[in-house]
Amino acid sequence: MRVRNRKGASDLLAAYPQYVILTPEDCKGKWASIFGNSNPIHIEVGSGKGRFITGMAAQNPDINYIGIDIQMTVLSYALDRVVEAGSPNVKLLQVDGSSLTNYFAPAEIDRLYLNFSDPWPKKRHEKRRLTYKSFLDTYKEILPEQGEIHFKTDNRGLFEYSLVSFSQYGMTLNGVWLDLHASVMEGNVMTEYEEKFSKKGQVIYRVEARF
Amino acid sequence: MRVRNRKGASDLLAAYPQYVILTPEDCKGKWASIFGNSNPIHIEVGSGKGRFITGMAAQNPDINYIGIDIQMTVLSYALDRVVEAGSPNVKLLQVDGSSLTNYFAPAEIDRLYLNFSDPWPKKRHEKRRLTYKSFLDTYKEILPEQGEIHFKTDNRGLFEYSLVSFSQYGMTLNGVWLDLHASVMEGNVMTEYEEKFSKKGQVIYRVEARF
Repeated sequence: MRVRNRKGASDLLAAYPQYVILTPEDCKGKWASIFGNSNPIHIEVGSGKGRFITGMAAQNPDINYIGIDIQMTVLSYALDRVVEAGSPNVKLLQVDGSSLTNYFAPAEIDRLYLNFSDPWPKKRHEKRRLTYKSFLDTYKEILPEQGEIHFKTDNRGLFEYSLVSFSQYGMTLNGVWLDLHASVMEGNVMTEYEEKFSKKGQVIYRVEARF
Repeated sequence: MRVRNRKGASDLLAAYPQYVILTPEDCKGKWASIFGNSNPIHIEVGSGKGRFITGMAAQNPDINYIGIDIQMTVLSYALDRVVEAGSPNVKLLQVDGSSLTNYFAPAEIDRLYLNFSDPWPKKRHEKRRLTYKSFLDTYKEILPEQGEIHFKTDNRGLFEYSLVSFSQYGMTLNGVWLDLHASVMEGNVMTEYEEKFSKKGQVIYRVEARF
């Protein structure tokens, strides 16, 4: 998600230390104490403007959520939502998806969400796709055995690529949806993108895969 | 594929022993000698009216093809095409997909095609779907190690099911196409169904999976 820079985004993030963790490298292995409970922790890599993570957090108060985005402005919009909702079970981090092992201990995360990730359609950019094998290495390290990735996208090429990437990595598909909104799926929380594109008649793909 | 019974179908099949093998149980382990060469053998389970297999046979003269269908009338229409084309590298069998190990020795078949198989959408009919695990057991036995299944369908539910079934069986996806006709795939031979449904704007799904 690309957005115009937001003036004051940095100050806004710094103003809410209860939601935005500015020194996540100090948190590795300590997330239960940071949340103040031992509930499962789910992360969303590329959390965008935060609609998914705040919706999930409201729907599942006994799960802790961490939204991750590399872009400060985007994260500041997610923070607006978290502040408005007053979500006690959400934290936000401005870090890169490839560096997650710096912030999370092995198996510290229970599930990982990817939603409408940048498709990077050019073959020479394959390594930047969040379902490329080097990212899967990273995810595997912070998830438990048989930990799951839940992935949604409207991008056909990225979805085709990701099914093959998961499979060739040795992951197992638990479920596949090739038109999510035509299927019965309880508790689906839409992202901003998802609502916009599905209104245009765009098919939404979804997969649950486990290591 | 359901069709009205064709009068004389039985006699027609019997009239072309060079194409229709009426006692396939005698052929197990002997297919190379039946074809008269040691070329790879590919089978299509549910070959319908034979457009795919005759097209593939013409495109790939160095591969032997065996079309399998349980329905005599359907097989007789496939025979019409084979006779018309005079395909030297095609045989047809009127047998059931679940009984393939009666007719083929271990690893005697090099690749298996499934095209527009009956979706059997009701959960209680799951065991009849040609990508159900008991069928995969059968296919695995007659294919070599890392043998491949190539599967096309327009049925979303069956395709979702099959991706998960392949994966949970321990198979690996080599490639996935979620809109085959919008993708570049050289040498795609359309089935009767495929042409009809894709003309109506229906998306065609395809997967290559290996054991």
